[in-house]
Amino acid sequence: MASQKSESAMSPKITGELLRLLRQTMRNCKYFSEPIHAYIVPSGDAHQSEYIAPCDCRREYICGFNGSAGTAIITEQHAAMWTDGRYFLQASQQMDSNWTLMKMGLKETPSQEDWLISVLPENSKVGVDPWIIAADQWKNMSKALTSAGHSLVAVPDNLIDAVWTDRPERPSTQLRTLGLEYTGISWQDKITKLRAKMTERKISWFVATALDEIAWLFNLRGADINYNPVFFAYAIVGMNSIRLFVDLKRLSDPVVRDHLQLDSPSLPELSIQTFPYESVYTELQAICAALGPRDKVWICDKASCALTQAIPKVHRSPIPYTPLCLAKAVKNVTEIKGMKMAHIKDAVALCELFAWLEKEIPQGNVTEISAADKAEELRSQQADFVGLSFPTISSVGPNGAIIHYRPLPETNRTLTVNEVYLIDSGAQYIDGTTDVTRTMHFGTPSAFEKECFTYVLKGHIAVSAAIFPNGTKGHLLDSFARAALWESGLDYLHGTGHGVGCFLNVHEGPCGISYKTFADEPLEPGMIVSDEPGYYEDGSFGIRIENVVLVVPAKPKYNYRNRGSLTFEPLTLVPIQVKMMNTELLTQKEKDWVNEYHRRCREVVGAELERQGRMEALQWLIRETQPIM
Amino acid sequence: MASQKSESAMSPKITGELLRLLRQTMRNCKYFSEPIHAYIVPSGDAHQSEYIAPCDCRREYICGFNGSAGTAIITEQHAAMWTDGRYFLQASQQMDSNWTLMKMGLKETPSQEDWLISVLPENSKVGVDPWIIAADQWKNMSKALTSAGHSLVAVPDNLIDAVWTDRPERPSTQLRTLGLEYTGISWQDKITKLRAKMTERKISWFVATALDEIAWLFNLRGADINYNPVFFAYAIVGMNSIRLFVDLKRLSDPVVRDHLQLDSPSLPELSIQTFPYESVYTELQAICAALGPRDKVWICDKASCALTQAIPKVHRSPIPYTPLCLAKAVKNVTEIKGMKMAHIKDAVALCELFAWLEKEIPQGNVTEISAADKAEELRSQQADFVGLSFPTISSVGPNGAIIHYRPLPETNRTLTVNEVYLIDSGAQYIDGTTDVTRTMHFGTPSAFEKECFTYVLKGHIAVSAAIFPNGTKGHLLDSFARAALWESGLDYLHGTGHGVGCFLNVHEGPCGISYKTFADEPLEPGMIVSDEPGYYEDGSFGIRIENVVLVVPAKPKYNYRNRGSLTFEPLTLVPIQVKMMNTELLTQKEKDWVNEYHRRCREVVGAELERQGRMEALQWLIRETQPIM
Repeated sequence: MASQKSESAMSPKITGELLRLLRQTMRNCKYFSEPIHAYIVPSGDAHQSEYIAPCDCRREYICGFNGSAGTAIITEQHAAMWTDGRYFLQASQQMDSNWTLMKMGLKETPSQEDWLISVLPENSKVGVDPWIIAADQWKNMSKALTSAGHSLVAVPDNLIDAVWTDRPERPSTQLRTLGLEYTGISWQDKITKLRAKMTERKISWFVATALDEIAWLFNLRGADINYNPVFFAYAIVGMNSIRLFVDLKRLSDPVVRDHLQLDSPSLPELSIQTFPYESVYTELQAICAALGPRDKVWICDKASCALTQAIPKVHRSPIPYTPLCLAKAVKNVTEIKGMKMAHIKDAVALCELFAWLEKEIPQGNVTEISAADKAEELRSQQADFVGLSFPTISSVGPNGAIIHYRPLPETNRTLTVNEVYLIDSGAQYIDGTTDVTRTMHFGTPSAFEKECFTYVLKGHIAVSAAIFPNGTKGHLLDSFARAALWESGLDYLHGTGHGVGCFLNVHEGPCGISYKTFADEPLEPGMIVSDEPGYYEDGSFGIRIENVVLVVPAKPKYNYRNRGSLTFEPLTLVPIQVKMMNTELLTQKEKDWVNEYHRRCREVVGAELERQGRMEALQWLIRETQPIM
Repeated sequence: MASQKSESAMSPKITGELLRLLRQTMRNCKYFSEPIHAYIVPSGDAHQSEYIAPCDCRREYICGFNGSAGTAIITEQHAAMWTDGRYFLQASQQMDSNWTLMKMGLKETPSQEDWLISVLPENSKVGVDPWIIAADQWKNMSKALTSAGHSLVAVPDNLIDAVWTDRPERPSTQLRTLGLEYTGISWQDKITKLRAKMTERKISWFVATALDEIAWLFNLRGADINYNPVFFAYAIVGMNSIRLFVDLKRLSDPVVRDHLQLDSPSLPELSIQTFPYESVYTELQAICAALGPRDKVWICDKASCALTQAIPKVHRSPIPYTPLCLAKAVKNVTEIKGMKMAHIKDAVALCELFAWLEKEIPQGNVTEISAADKAEELRSQQADFVGLSFPTISSVGPNGAIIHYRPLPETNRTLTVNEVYLIDSGAQYIDGTTDVTRTMHFGTPSAFEKECFTYVLKGHIAVSAAIFPNGTKGHLLDSFARAALWESGLDYLHGTGHGVGCFLNVHEGPCGISYKTFADEPLEPGMIVSDEPGYYEDGSFGIRIENVVLVVPAKPKYNYRNRGSLTFEPLTLVPIQVKMMNTELLTQKEKDWVNEYHRRCREVVGAELERQGRMEALQWLIRETQPIM
């Protein structure tokens, strides 16, 4: 799964009055000592989250466009919004004529900096909320504006919030504690390991700002953001101090208090001091004021400008990936066991779904939306189900070619025996997170559909079965997924895989498989990524085959320089439709891989289907996992 | 071919007196207004050449180590030299006890900056010749030293030269003019195209500092540096001005004067003004003094600090690859024809060599050195031969596992029917540059040798036969070369390919095939790179299979988004020894590739061998190109 949001309301938002109000606040010295000539509204929240809560959808509020990526800039005269090719159509439908759509990636489209420089009067002030803009983005924007005689200024109060009368509350959902049976390691031990890393690098303090890192560190989960079991918080960890910044109401729950040992810490250095969410800035300032000349503070270079700049430059040690991000990516045995269990339950639900679709589609009563709903219903019957891990992509025929499609009433198509069906879906279970894509035909696929499906399958297998040395970065495997498509002149315009959290975000760093990322960290045993090549024939069909796979040691014949080798073990165990394959295009090795994969699906998921007494789905599984010749 | 220099003298150079003299100059206010506390001696010349002339071997002169990469730093108390893993042994043998060897890549080895900061007294001056250090290196070093309270200072006179009594003269070899029959495009047209790029990017001046770019621009060649047909020069090009800085004596040759139209320029804007080599700095300063406020000057970010800083920062526009570098990389039809011809002649020489070796080796009279000499002798009989393109790597058995080996009297081994022989060699012809590696056995290779050779061959074919979309960067193909080795737990620790010049440097940017480079430019039809995977079994044998290949359009079945596809055409046409292959490990597709490659070798090189009447070599070629089943 590769994005977050898609079309929801297709009539443009009327923004004239809103923009008038916003421009008033830009001139109002209550917010900044001088008038602001331009105001930047980025996409994200203060934690640079990929998915955001309704109260943080400020760019959507001001311009109407609700895609996952886009930056709005408002000047006295103009209002412009930059987004990428996935969203050109959607943005043009959702924004009224007060807005200029800036199509990123087109030659003629100016960058935000260039555009600002071209429209601003001399010596202008450009304002931005320093909590929403990441430190590295601030740096680049500030440099460009300064060199043109303008300046980028931090406006402490968010000006969108100032005009947003019915802005939703920041969510503060109940916290869920996770015991050792799910996490494998206590938060106390995670703190100790973090401190060991800090000692190794002579770091005095670490500031955690990413919500999934904080949830992982404390073995807590929330539901503040849809699909992501996280909660709004910051944490600052020193060698003898742990400070957690969170809505304090959430800590009245005795289970949470006990889990965090708030009332009776076992050791003084493992005692957690709690503070209101909003006080992180002043606390960090106070910590920094007391630093010795050689003290260093770790903060991610993607953290907010506000929090980054609270640390004086001499003490600041920015890092591309925090030690929590790296530790979280390598799953321990308990987490791996949980992820495997979650994937078995998920496979049970999908086998049931596909058996049901096979029966229902010929009646003509199944739509993209009802199929997605059925998938959710079946998943929700499984133990420890919490919710979906992202909005289900359920797409038929031409809709399948829209990579970031999400069915809406106005686009909803009926599933038939004549078109290819693509479903990319996943769930959060307490023991793990799933993300799987299958592409099926419930009638007779065309030769071209089969040919393309088979190239995609070859790419999927090439990655899944690859053996590679320890220390290899995921981006070096990306071309394996494309070789068969390239050979026929085909390709797909997205990466091949992303890291997957364990009952956490379905997208996580620092590893992945993509031609775009060179800043990824080497793959290590215990890391979990997706393997999802695809092919999209515009206006006709879409194909994607996605498994979640675990990095495991491999034992090839030789062991060059004792480096050791790695490979992948599929965690997803859902049959890949043989009917869609042109088996003549497969090598014997590839056929062997398919047969062995289906044997495992049948063995592992078959046993669970039997245990759960879901006999129709079991029959479907047995039929769909017959070996190919 | 992947490096330049290797062992030559294995007893250490005695440097006590030299260092005493150098330290005297460091304290001498004749050279810098204050005493210098440390002096940095980088590897390169003022043009950041990979291969350098004897007069520029300053690091070798001061410490004795003559490898291709290494930086020496001398303080009042210490002398240290940093080099990488290829050269640890050689450097330790060539340097006396005045020197500390700093082994780069080992955890415990400090960086040059950290070491300087640890040994220098407070507020020290660190000197360097600003012509020898590249602008980007200066920037990093200066930043690190400044933050620790020291300063990096540019010492105008080179302090090594000040103590180097018998320093060789800077070479000033005769210039060779190349006509349209070799270049396909006049220097005048190259200037016009350069100016078009400058206009497109609103650039007023371009400063050329790389020797191969200047040679290419003016369709001139020299012999100032071994193996590289270049000459010492700078060029500065404006919209109405061309300034060439070169030893003016070289321009007395009427052929050169005529070629450059020095006495009767066709158009005023194509009139070349000539200046002494040394006056580039003052001329560039004069040009910059006359710039308008918006004028921009292009210079490569790898150019010398001295020349870069001659351009005021507001006017400076540094670029990773110059327009000449990019234009030079895409060979035109005339150059491609020349490269093909050069490779046919080169193949003739190698077929003769291998036929000769096969006869002579059993007599026990052939050594690594005599085989290399024979290869040079045979190449020199071919038309338009100029010289070798790099020192021949001729290595038997365990020497083959030393990737950067070059045979020396003290390491020279005799070729036998019991060991694997690896020869990596190439030549400069007026019509093109070659670089080819073949690995052969003249007796019966072991099963393991054959197995490894076959994996390397599979990797070579996977790259050579790859089809990939227009716009693909070479680094995305690197893993194709390794997949078969990885599958068996093997690998090689070098890149897979480099750009190759046309009667120019055997290594050139901006394209290549390596896991290390992400700054490479996309592959384009007309670009020429090497394809050279290998396997090295320490203490036993080395294997490498290298062809030079041309990027050509491919016509696969489909054409996704009209992007077009590319593939490679081998220019090297020398048989790959079938005896070394375990054909059971090859797929049918791979066997087809080998047979088709050998068919072309026989057809194209066979015809030339026949024309030249070299019948023994022809018999060898015919036998070695029998199809495999």
